Amino acid sequence: MRIALGIEYDGTDFSGWQRLKVDVSVQGVLEEALSKVADHPVEVSCAGRTDAGVHGRCQVVHFDSEARRDMRGWVLGACSNLPPSVAVLWAQPVPDSFHARYAARSRRYRYHLLNRPVRAALDARYVTWERLPLDAARMHEAAQALLGEHDFSAFRALSCQAAHPRRSVLAVSVRREGEQVFVDIEANAFLHHMVRNIVGSLLLIGRDEQPVAWMAELLAGRDRQVAGPTAPATGLTFIGPRYEPYWGLPGEVSQ
Amino acid sequence: MRIALGIEYDGTDFSGWQRLKVDVSVQGVLEEALSKVADHPVEVSCAGRTDAGVHGRCQVVHFDSEARRDMRGWVLGACSNLPPSVAVLWAQPVPDSFHARYAARSRRYRYHLLNRPVRAALDARYVTWERLPLDAARMHEAAQALLGEHDFSAFRALSCQAAHPRRSVLAVSVRREGEQVFVDIEANAFLHHMVRNIVGSLLLIGRDEQPVAWMAELLAGRDRQVAGPTAPATGLTFIGPRYEPYWGLPGEVSQ
Repeated sequence: MRIALGIEYDGTDFSGWQRLKVDVSVQGVLEEALSKVADHPVEVSCAGRTDAGVHGRCQVVHFDSEARRDMRGWVLGACSNLPPSVAVLWAQPVPDSFHARYAARSRRYRYHLLNRPVRAALDARYVTWERLPLDAARMHEAAQALLGEHDFSAFRALSCQAAHPRRSVLAVSVRREGEQVFVDIEANAFLHHMVRNIVGSLLLIGRDEQPVAWMAELLAGRDRQVAGPTAPATGLTFIGPRYEPYWGLPGEVSQ
Repeated sequence: MRIALGIEYDGTDFSGWQRLKVDVSVQGVLEEALSKVADHPVEVSCAGRTDAGVHGRCQVVHFDSEARRDMRGWVLGACSNLPPSVAVLWAQPVPDSFHARYAARSRRYRYHLLNRPVRAALDARYVTWERLPLDAARMHEAAQALLGEHDFSAFRALSCQAAHPRRSVLAVSVRREGEQVFVDIEANAFLHHMVRNIVGSLLLIGRDEQPVAWMAELLAGRDRQVAGPTAPATGLTFIGPRYEPYWGLPGEVSQ
């Protein structure tokens, strides 16, 4: 039987999503907790791996088990075996043809900037501090150049292992709420560090150190060396993937 | 010269606001940081002491110093000597007649509940989890009984050292935003544990374990033994005090 789970996590104290030989990963603690509930080794596949320090609002994973547990049992059993920084939000049976990664139509990320003269004390785990005033309207305008299918080599980490650099950005917005600036971006998929590299360049435009048209130029130039620096992981949250309504998953990950 | 400061802090790892012989207090680390900037011992007075685990969005303090520093110097100097969980938001010169505690016309608190079947992973430091469904509209209706000047003995901790139990609640609201429920309350001043004891009783009404009229009954009965349990500190944030516009303080603490 195949089961899909919604996972929330605070990435601050993890080495990232992916289980590796050393360090503590979200995947590692989740598989350990599920293995206890299933009473057999469990391996999960996720919709989108996240880096060290990046948070998850509703990551989706799937796994296979013949253990007889109701969905509530998977949720509560896993939660009671997980550290406080990871929670299972829901569990749902899915057809064997469902795959958390390959069935996802799109992924959404949010980057949260705190824009004021002094650093954060509250919410410091979840925001990136920008001291210089940002013009969110300029950033929003510049970001619209990313819409559609493009070669995103300008915003691709050297370490990226994707087969090709083409991705489709479905929606992108930058808006201010008081001292907070939110960058929301949805794409079919993302290259390694793509959101953080985009935000790093948008920051230069927001501070008026580069013109609005710079974003389109960077994209066309496909040169990572020219674009802005990689923004810190702290402010980044993987909001979650989206699937066809066909799969019957909860509204927050269904389209 | 008297100076007022706005202070933000994450109370999770502090024993509370007040400096004591042992443990780490917000007041203690703030006075230590300011003493370094002033180059003489500094003592601060605050608008409202908070308990262990309670957060501050804009606590206000005042202190006296003859050190020649501009306001930016106080803010940046203090911030660079404070731990990451405390920040000075602003500094402003005030007349010697200003007192952070006695000049405050009112104080505002927010209690943040996460109302869903599973515990928090993200924002776990800032919310109190309530598993059972809450009717926020019922809680809001019940809370309106608190408006005005009353004897709040029903919601007063045994340890409270206030001279008398009469306080004036100026505004109180309970509202839902998805899985979040916010209790906002403003009063001229608060008794020890008053907000947490009020929230503890509102929770019983929200879960339909007590009628809406119970809040008014508790208040009239003045018996702490009958009211609900003290809600945890985690979900509580001191939003800040409010002062007469006369003092010329920033908008967030001015009325």
